Amino acid sequence: MAASIATLKDVAAAAGVAVSTASRALAGNPIVAVETRERVQKCAEALNYRPNAQARALRSSRSNIIGVTIPSLINPYFAEMASAIQQEASRRGLSTIISSTSEDPDQLTDSLHVLADQRVDGILVVPYNGTEAVLRELDSSGMPLMLMDRELPDSGLTSVASDPSMGFTAAVDHLVSRGHRRIGYLSGPLTTSTGQSRLEAFTAAVRARGLGEMPVYHGGFHRSNGLEGARALLNQDVDAVIAGDSMMSIGALEACHVAGIVIGRDLAFIGYDDQPVMALQSCPITVIDQGVADMGRMALRLLLDMASGKSPPATHRLPTSLIIRPSTNFHHNPAQRR
Amino acid sequence: MAASIATLKDVAAAAGVAVSTASRALAGNPIVAVETRERVQKCAEALNYRPNAQARALRSSRSNIIGVTIPSLINPYFAEMASAIQQEASRRGLSTIISSTSEDPDQLTDSLHVLADQRVDGILVVPYNGTEAVLRELDSSGMPLMLMDRELPDSGLTSVASDPSMGFTAAVDHLVSRGHRRIGYLSGPLTTSTGQSRLEAFTAAVRARGLGEMPVYHGGFHRSNGLEGARALLNQDVDAVIAGDSMMSIGALEACHVAGIVIGRDLAFIGYDDQPVMALQSCPITVIDQGVADMGRMALRLLLDMASGKSPPATHRLPTSLIIRPSTNFHHNPAQRR
Repeated sequence: MAASIATLKDVAAAAGVAVSTASRALAGNPIVAVETRERVQKCAEALNYRPNAQARALRSSRSNIIGVTIPSLINPYFAEMASAIQQEASRRGLSTIISSTSEDPDQLTDSLHVLADQRVDGILVVPYNGTEAVLRELDSSGMPLMLMDRELPDSGLTSVASDPSMGFTAAVDHLVSRGHRRIGYLSGPLTTSTGQSRLEAFTAAVRARGLGEMPVYHGGFHRSNGLEGARALLNQDVDAVIAGDSMMSIGALEACHVAGIVIGRDLAFIGYDDQPVMALQSCPITVIDQGVADMGRMALRLLLDMASGKSPPATHRLPTSLIIRPSTNFHHNPAQRR
Repeated sequence: MAASIATLKDVAAAAGVAVSTASRALAGNPIVAVETRERVQKCAEALNYRPNAQARALRSSRSNIIGVTIPSLINPYFAEMASAIQQEASRRGLSTIISSTSEDPDQLTDSLHVLADQRVDGILVVPYNGTEAVLRELDSSGMPLMLMDRELPDSGLTSVASDPSMGFTAAVDHLVSRGHRRIGYLSGPLTTSTGQSRLEAFTAAVRARGLGEMPVYHGGFHRSNGLEGARALLNQDVDAVIAGDSMMSIGALEACHVAGIVIGRDLAFIGYDDQPVMALQSCPITVIDQGVADMGRMALRLLLDMASGKSPPATHRLPTSLIIRPSTNFHHNPAQRR
């Protein structure tokens, strides 16, 4: 066989650095030491590494495989997203391969390169703040990319995400109408656009109702954050709690069960995302829903439009809604504090 | 570039058939019409398609990527299995790509070919009965393969699965010790080794206790089967229900919540697999646990041993155990039938 096209992995191996370092070095990222950047650059030249040519070669031979990078396999929100994409792809005669980054931004570079080194026709990716460089590099190499769930406004990449404002406005209005005045919020990490925009939406909804400062716990997208955060909020005399993502919703439920707090009587609770465990409670849980299956299907549709050469569409935001269940649907008298 | 090695996909394209058909044709599967088999065979010869040579070429250049094929992304049991594999692989410096077959045996062939056409170093696969031919073909092409969760005794392939007998014996003994005499069972499909072996384990445990014939609902590995099956069993006056997999456990919980049946008082309930939703109930649920994370990690370890040329080990069976929680831990008086 003639020499095959050099990949970024080959360049990294030749320079004796990690693939992510090679990627950063070629992108001119100042995080990488000057000597390393120069060594990687020389290896890329020696191996005749041409990201654009490689990408065109890939593009010209369709694999009919779509790559999907999600932050977690065990987060039911992302599992449903990946499952909806896979089913929609299958309906269109396409296969799907999935990679998880375990909520670790450093793993995104590896995930993307693994998928890009395969012959995928495009990649759907849930990004992190701070990963703009690797995504831009992949984009400029010609790989069709579509962001999902989280936006990166400065990256110039298109995305499909949800707008939390309707959901939070409906949630706060509903709680206030039931007599709740002290609403705690479990916030996600501000290193993600979803963590940021949901905290802003909560704050705006609370302000619009003239409720004053409310207790906020700053956590992460993990069950343990919800467990710890719910305990912290309960110690601050809240009469209602809103969780800012699906994993913290699960952790908060656990905290209440363990503490013997009866949701729907002692405490009003609103979860995030309509995952099965929320309805599957003896007191079913009200949720802010993002319609994640629709989000996944729309992202795939837009990616395929982009890959087939139609002009890339603008960023899409899907509305969120409130699904009211017994966990909040009771009247609370603020005079009777627990 | 010189002519690259022909893949099964190329052969299928040349013969104008699906990849799965080409695979079956080359394996001499009589399901494929004789004319089609001959056409595929001729195309394979014309293209100089040599599965073994191709496999050796793949083996000689390690990609450090492991392929994983699971039946469902939204089944928390398989999500935890894939997540444990991915984390263990990551710890060893390997990447993982995941493909789902949506509990459809026909999709397994496509899933395996997608992964095999990528440059994976080996594949961990949850198989179905009736998919022996495609797995054997892939195995004889030199691709390291390890079955997980489900066994295929006639395929000659090694597997890591769990032995349900300890779990079912402990479950039935526990229920009998609490006064239950009429135990309904939600059985999985008998087209899987897990469906078969669990029904056998339940039947043996019931017989060992001299309980006579018990009501069995024959379902599938879907939430809807658990919902429908639990309703059917409740109509047959059971005082305890054991679910035969994680998705039917979820459906059965839902049936009880909707019918207003208080688990742990009106009914004893035992779920399958210790998924988060089982402990996350105001009355936490007793489960038969398979230790799925251990199963995934062990399967990866054995696959890597095999890929690195160590002799393939024998089939492994991990013990199951009973985790007792309040859903069964109460005394029932059979005289007081609902």
